[in-house]
Amino acid sequence: MSIQNQAEIISIGTELLRGEVTDTNAGYLASQLPLSGIELRKVTMVGDNHEQLCEILRQALDRSALVVTTGGLGPTEDDLTRECIATVLGESLYVDAELEKHLRGLFKQIGTEMPSHNIKQAWLIPSAKALPNPRGTAPGWWVEMDKKTVVSLPGPPRELIPMWQNEVKSRLQSRFPGKAILARTIKTYAVQEAKVAELVHPFFDSANPSLGIYAKLDGIHLRLIAHGDNAEQLLQSTEAQLEEILGPSIWGKDDDCLEGVIGGWLSEKGMTLATMEDGSGGLLGSIFANAPGSSKYYRGGLIACSDEMKAAFGVPEQLIKEHGAISAEVAEAMAIAARERLSADFGLSTSGIVGAHNPDGRPPGLTYIGIADNLGQRSWEQNYARFQDEAGQREAIGALFRLRERLIELKIAKPPHKR
Amino acid sequence: MSIQNQAEIISIGTELLRGEVTDTNAGYLASQLPLSGIELRKVTMVGDNHEQLCEILRQALDRSALVVTTGGLGPTEDDLTRECIATVLGESLYVDAELEKHLRGLFKQIGTEMPSHNIKQAWLIPSAKALPNPRGTAPGWWVEMDKKTVVSLPGPPRELIPMWQNEVKSRLQSRFPGKAILARTIKTYAVQEAKVAELVHPFFDSANPSLGIYAKLDGIHLRLIAHGDNAEQLLQSTEAQLEEILGPSIWGKDDDCLEGVIGGWLSEKGMTLATMEDGSGGLLGSIFANAPGSSKYYRGGLIACSDEMKAAFGVPEQLIKEHGAISAEVAEAMAIAARERLSADFGLSTSGIVGAHNPDGRPPGLTYIGIADNLGQRSWEQNYARFQDEAGQREAIGALFRLRERLIELKIAKPPHKR
Repeated sequence: MSIQNQAEIISIGTELLRGEVTDTNAGYLASQLPLSGIELRKVTMVGDNHEQLCEILRQALDRSALVVTTGGLGPTEDDLTRECIATVLGESLYVDAELEKHLRGLFKQIGTEMPSHNIKQAWLIPSAKALPNPRGTAPGWWVEMDKKTVVSLPGPPRELIPMWQNEVKSRLQSRFPGKAILARTIKTYAVQEAKVAELVHPFFDSANPSLGIYAKLDGIHLRLIAHGDNAEQLLQSTEAQLEEILGPSIWGKDDDCLEGVIGGWLSEKGMTLATMEDGSGGLLGSIFANAPGSSKYYRGGLIACSDEMKAAFGVPEQLIKEHGAISAEVAEAMAIAARERLSADFGLSTSGIVGAHNPDGRPPGLTYIGIADNLGQRSWEQNYARFQDEAGQREAIGALFRLRERLIELKIAKPPHKR
Repeated sequence: MSIQNQAEIISIGTELLRGEVTDTNAGYLASQLPLSGIELRKVTMVGDNHEQLCEILRQALDRSALVVTTGGLGPTEDDLTRECIATVLGESLYVDAELEKHLRGLFKQIGTEMPSHNIKQAWLIPSAKALPNPRGTAPGWWVEMDKKTVVSLPGPPRELIPMWQNEVKSRLQSRFPGKAILARTIKTYAVQEAKVAELVHPFFDSANPSLGIYAKLDGIHLRLIAHGDNAEQLLQSTEAQLEEILGPSIWGKDDDCLEGVIGGWLSEKGMTLATMEDGSGGLLGSIFANAPGSSKYYRGGLIACSDEMKAAFGVPEQLIKEHGAISAEVAEAMAIAARERLSADFGLSTSGIVGAHNPDGRPPGLTYIGIADNLGQRSWEQNYARFQDEAGQREAIGALFRLRERLIELKIAKPPHKR
């Protein structure tokens, strides 16, 4: 196995080992490295311990061409990343005049003197260049020697992510060239992960493009990564084959999100949507409310967890009495009421008990999704019991998928699986 | 440093290194190990690679008394955890008759023949005992030799967490005795993490009880862990000192959640709550809707992201025109309208733009929280811009804290910081 494009991540911080902070950086970087043509070999999480960190750094550099560290760039004596890199490389730390000036400027901006121990955030070693950090006081380090590279980034994801995107990615491209990388994510739904994996099985053996499969809340995502001079051609050809195999199960690609797809269609036609929720309790509304540009098409929502409130919002009491609150009939009536009360073209509803409580003696997790439009109403039974804590979110996303289907059926939109 | 109570975690799976699945198990176990008096030394994430996994296992067992592995217990040839443990310990794998019987029974239950490769899920080695897994086909392993212990658990958190709680914790107690452990979490709010850390600084030097500090969405949590014969006394004494220092900033302990605390008070007095949301767009409602027993006190909610919908829900149009939709006046009117329209004792509202769009030229992230009750209405300005993707959630939780304060002010409840 070549180590030319192999990487390791070292997540640094005693707070990680104590479970006080969850390390999300390793997962983020793991998903990003393949886009630079780099294979992640190992992740190690270690505390703020000079001896241990030096040992792990040394081992990682023995094995891999690239080592990415996260954390340990703060101003305190527990922040040891710079010291350990210097020790392992046998280089001396010095205060960089420009970094110091910038750092003192940051403190001046907030009207305070720089604490003396913060000076270590202006340290460099001869092999290191600073990586600007617009969201914090700790610059990163880009360290090059021989055939080895060390990238050191601060721990807070809100600092790390933009630094990765804006500073590190392009440097990796120069440092690990010949790896022109193209990626495509294909988003599917209504097909189980095992089934998708089976359908696309032959493609897993391919190294270029490589295929990854991810189970997400909004369905199964497939990610193709191609490299080399004919990357574009390779990507397009495999993409076309996957479209052939998966057909209408594909609902989006790359950055598409379900509410964006639906919202785009509705906005284009000047149509509007309103919601009434029981089971998802407001989560469905929040998906639309937080979508950019949603004020064009999302009228508003009603949260109605009791029979009384459903009735107050316009669901006929008789219907609740006859069929129970968790029923196809009531889900449809909720959708109708949302549509009428909030003067929208589409009413979308979720009913059903997603939690443990279960008044009607119905199976836990049983829910109904309802849609009403100018042609009538419809509902679907779904059971989200197995998703436990995620059941409400799953129900909200289930409702989005049903609305998407309905919009396609009404020819308000075409499925986007062909580009 | 004694290795008697030191542990390492090995997270196993190529899907983790590719970023296809995020490892949440290491963080969970990191927070659990201190409760068994065990110090986590290192976490390593490795792919499905026999050689690498054996090497990491060997190193971990050299250094630490306890090694916990997660993942790699599935039925496929990529699932190598059992094989690697057997290799490292120099023991032979055999099919355990009872495990096989149980496993075949599971497949019979779902009406299918057991695939032949699944037999490896019935494997044991002489040093290993099986840990029952009621939620999956892969039993765990509990391996004891000399002074070393290996615990192997399956990767899916929904299988791992109950196995840890029901099987592993009690076995660790017997295996690492003399570590009677008591824990207490103290939940604070309205005080910044740095400030809390400063206030409780002297307690960080103590080893028993030890103190951890966690920044969570619902404030800063402090966790005390005490061990030994006088653990209870030690815990109580430090807890009392922390209560003295932090006073009314403490809003709960241990499993308390904010909506549970608020809901308990309202239920007790037979009082009710209704919401109207703009900025949090339904998230506030979903917190109450999903709380157990909330039907007693949560009437329902309105999601109103446009001026028109706010007006339709009862906010005077004139007020919106005069002050803008993002204003103290409108937030208060939203709370009043929610209270009146949904016939509740309390109306709680969130207004403001949490996303990037910003119609009135006001600073992004600027929000107002409103409360209305039978004595009048009130509002608070908050800025959640720095929380970006989490802004909506933060705003919803901010509203919970404001409601809690109001309930205390009205003497509907007393702060629970003394037990």
